[in-house]
Amino acid sequence: MSSKYKPIPHGTITLPQGFLAGATYAGIKTEGEHLLDLGILCSEVPCIAAGVFTTNKIKAAPVVLCQERLARKRAQAIVVNSGCANACTGEQGITDSAEMADLTARKLGISPQEVLVASTGVIGVPLPMESLRTGIEGILLSREGGHQLAEAMMTTDTFPKGIAVSVRLGGKEVTIGGAAKGAGMIYPDLATLLCFLTTDAAVDASFAQTALRKAVDDSFNMVAIDSDTSPNDMVLLLANGLAGNKPLEAGMAEAEIFQDALCEVCLYLAKCIAQDGEGATKLIEVKVEGALTLKDARVAARAIVSSPLVKAALHGGNPNWGRIIAALGRSGAEINQLKIDLYLKDICLLKAGCPVPFDKEEARDVLSNPEVAIRVCLNLGKESATAWGCDLSEEYVTINSAYVT
Amino acid sequence: MSSKYKPIPHGTITLPQGFLAGATYAGIKTEGEHLLDLGILCSEVPCIAAGVFTTNKIKAAPVVLCQERLARKRAQAIVVNSGCANACTGEQGITDSAEMADLTARKLGISPQEVLVASTGVIGVPLPMESLRTGIEGILLSREGGHQLAEAMMTTDTFPKGIAVSVRLGGKEVTIGGAAKGAGMIYPDLATLLCFLTTDAAVDASFAQTALRKAVDDSFNMVAIDSDTSPNDMVLLLANGLAGNKPLEAGMAEAEIFQDALCEVCLYLAKCIAQDGEGATKLIEVKVEGALTLKDARVAARAIVSSPLVKAALHGGNPNWGRIIAALGRSGAEINQLKIDLYLKDICLLKAGCPVPFDKEEARDVLSNPEVAIRVCLNLGKESATAWGCDLSEEYVTINSAYVT
Repeated sequence: MSSKYKPIPHGTITLPQGFLAGATYAGIKTEGEHLLDLGILCSEVPCIAAGVFTTNKIKAAPVVLCQERLARKRAQAIVVNSGCANACTGEQGITDSAEMADLTARKLGISPQEVLVASTGVIGVPLPMESLRTGIEGILLSREGGHQLAEAMMTTDTFPKGIAVSVRLGGKEVTIGGAAKGAGMIYPDLATLLCFLTTDAAVDASFAQTALRKAVDDSFNMVAIDSDTSPNDMVLLLANGLAGNKPLEAGMAEAEIFQDALCEVCLYLAKCIAQDGEGATKLIEVKVEGALTLKDARVAARAIVSSPLVKAALHGGNPNWGRIIAALGRSGAEINQLKIDLYLKDICLLKAGCPVPFDKEEARDVLSNPEVAIRVCLNLGKESATAWGCDLSEEYVTINSAYVT
Repeated sequence: MSSKYKPIPHGTITLPQGFLAGATYAGIKTEGEHLLDLGILCSEVPCIAAGVFTTNKIKAAPVVLCQERLARKRAQAIVVNSGCANACTGEQGITDSAEMADLTARKLGISPQEVLVASTGVIGVPLPMESLRTGIEGILLSREGGHQLAEAMMTTDTFPKGIAVSVRLGGKEVTIGGAAKGAGMIYPDLATLLCFLTTDAAVDASFAQTALRKAVDDSFNMVAIDSDTSPNDMVLLLANGLAGNKPLEAGMAEAEIFQDALCEVCLYLAKCIAQDGEGATKLIEVKVEGALTLKDARVAARAIVSSPLVKAALHGGNPNWGRIIAALGRSGAEINQLKIDLYLKDICLLKAGCPVPFDKEEARDVLSNPEVAIRVCLNLGKESATAWGCDLSEEYVTINSAYVT
């Protein structure tokens, strides 16, 4: 988080005006897991809505439903469950997602078309609709429900991920809130699993979509836990306009301020996801500078942060820079081997492609921190990009060998 | 190995006529690792030579040297060391690789241009040239040295990988031998780390190159241990013509027989590499059928066999088919979710995209075997491809956290 946008202490997705949330345990997740598993987020008034979805060609039923409904660029509520992804569930899955929306709409007294649906959890298992019917019925919505909603989204996450920031736009105080989940099956395009964003800003619908896409590209799409992409990934933005600002459109100075704040919120949540990667003990930041093109910088940073061998070396506190260079070399980015500089925090490991003697104890010290920064200078151009990920531990394997089918 | 080409029991790279090999411990590998670390393979007479190399843009010095020398399409010997990759070692690395070739040429009484060089091991460390000078001097070459050579190539491999097969070509008995190493930093393009192939067949130089490329595409390039590609990968073929057959050229019936046998040798070695993946307890075979294009079939099979979540699930004996479908969906291959059939050995898990109830105990039984076969039918076209890999265990992480820089 830059100094410009201080997160509001304990800020959640219900901090922007007019948003309510609540959650319950409906019995979808099995015992021993985090207890809330079903939640509703809603606005007191209809919202402009935007969404970014998984690029996986296998799309879960809730993704199909949301993509359809977002053609209207409007929504007023989101219902979300964890413990069951409702993916690879055929026609029944689509029917079940639609019923989740219907039940929520009836409870809130709004049109089913105004309700978006998200699910996360095990693939290939039908939703336990009886539990959902009772569960949705029993949810209590309040202005304080944001934290509960973030908890209800969790699967293998070890902590709920929420934030809110405020900015002034043309004399009006505007707030953006966010909640996210995601700890495994995380790879850019899209890296999130689930993220919901709320704001009381008034925004033009097409600006909302482009602003969301840009924020996602620079944050969630630059996070990698493993190289798997979920069929359920989605980032949804609801903007209810209650702040009373002049509606934001592309080109307005206030729109740029809003865009920056939205990026910061997404970045904060994306880094939470990286930090909470399954089995992770360290947050890894890889910055690639001096690339010929932005695409080169992005693919290089992502390849390094995704490399199992780099991740395992960093887990062991092992400054094995050869693996970083090998991952860079296979990334597809344009490089000149004899121009590459490589830094671990401030320690130079490689200069113009040649190894630089370094203090291994100092390097091990740097690697023993919970946050590790790697910087690669390609010295070919002016583009740069940053990616985030985590180390690869034995625990990642243990978690994913045991996970229930 | 198909029934057509039975491997010759204990067959090695020196089984084809006129090939000699030997190895020594030169002190390049550290204690506790396999003891041989330097070897020479040579033919009594000059050979037609072909090579396929890593696609990593970071190229180790021996790769640069071999690519240069293979412009002549001829070679008579290969010198190989393990324990040091001679990668990211700047100009000194090139000089050192050239000296390895010079020392070998002097020992054998041939031109340095006839010697190819291969290295595998830690990146970014210069070759210990004093040890290499003494080591090369002391190597004893013999017709029985093939097994020793395979041992000298090993790093984290747990067993040496060698094979030989014979076929009759126009009344002449022709033998192909192979030796390979590779257990980590293995991802298609090229998957091998190192593989040397020998044959006493007489072959045309351009046929040798195309035959080698085809064999590599269907074998080593379909193997994945992790998603990392080494800067040192190479597959080299030496053909000395001592079998006395009519030189093989593209289009000859005998050339096709030779091509098939070469593919079988590469496939056998590729499967050995998958089976011996770092920390692996299972060989995984993924066949994708009914794809629209061959490329689709290949990327789909590779994506599934490379997925950390699929690999971890199979390690735990967990029939989590949702992860297989998720990996397929992100592979880039053209799919129709509602046409996919999925089998674990003979157990149908998914039919036309819908889950099929199956006996979980039976599935767990299948998964407890050391070889696990997954079959995906896309039902869109006629192309198919098979990829091989291994499970992901805690041991993989342990090995790669601890590996010396």
